[in-house]
Amino acid sequence: MSDEAALRSIVVERVMPHPPEKIWRALTEARLIEQWLMKNDFVPRLGARFTFAAKPMGDWDGVVHCEVTEFDPPTRLAYAWRGGSRTNRAYGAVLDSVVQWTLTPEPGGTRVRMEHSGFGAQNRAAFEAMSGGWPRVVERLEQASRGTTGP
Amino acid sequence: MSDEAALRSIVVERVMPHPPEKIWRALTEARLIEQWLMKNDFVPRLGARFTFAAKPMGDWDGVVHCEVTEFDPPTRLAYAWRGGSRTNRAYGAVLDSVVQWTLTPEPGGTRVRMEHSGFGAQNRAAFEAMSGGWPRVVERLEQASRGTTGP
Repeated sequence: MSDEAALRSIVVERVMPHPPEKIWRALTEARLIEQWLMKNDFVPRLGARFTFAAKPMGDWDGVVHCEVTEFDPPTRLAYAWRGGSRTNRAYGAVLDSVVQWTLTPEPGGTRVRMEHSGFGAQNRAAFEAMSGGWPRVVERLEQASRGTTGP
Repeated sequence: MSDEAALRSIVVERVMPHPPEKIWRALTEARLIEQWLMKNDFVPRLGARFTFAAKPMGDWDGVVHCEVTEFDPPTRLAYAWRGGSRTNRAYGAVLDSVVQWTLTPEPGGTRVRMEHSGFGAQNRAAFEAMSGGWPRVVERLEQASRGTTGP
């Protein structure tokens, strides 16, 4: 079996000095998501479809097509993350992936785990770029959570 | 909070055309582990301590100090993976990590998931090297599993 049979994930964990409810708001309000991730039309409901507006690349218009696959406030959120174009080879190649967030309370804060799974051999460029990018995005999520009016 | 608060994991998933029991043998017999990973003195028992003999680097003798933290045949295995030296900066810096294997039966085979977690800011070089290396190691695990006398 070739190396193409393997899938990789990007995982970032970070303990944030906020209660889960404040982080949950930053994860699930479109206006706040835009602050730490991208322009979007997120809908906070299981099964909802929404999009992110990423940077266009080659034949890909930059639209990430998403669907909420887990919605369990304030601990678990997941969405399908699909984008790319069949004619692109590098960063904008077809990506059929999932982003999953898990919030676990800890003394003094919340452990936030982000797993972006589903990177195949054709997604090497996206994997490498996003492997470096997600830690910074998660840091911005912490900053965006600070400002929310949680409990 | 600085970027040093974030931890990253390497995750590789691969569906192998073998039953879980055959893969479990390759994961837990020292002679077989050497075929796909490294020389070792693995002991198949919860709480057992063992070592891998990796390549020495700077002040680090290359010994990875491990301890079995999950042992649930034939589905879950985890071990602490500790190595490196305080005086090393790049690949051989102190690494306090965990390797976790999860085997899930599927029609015609087994989904194998490997997660190596605990890479901090000081482990960037090791993360990048092992991020490229683990998919090949998991491919070799598939080959090593083929030869075991499973059920």
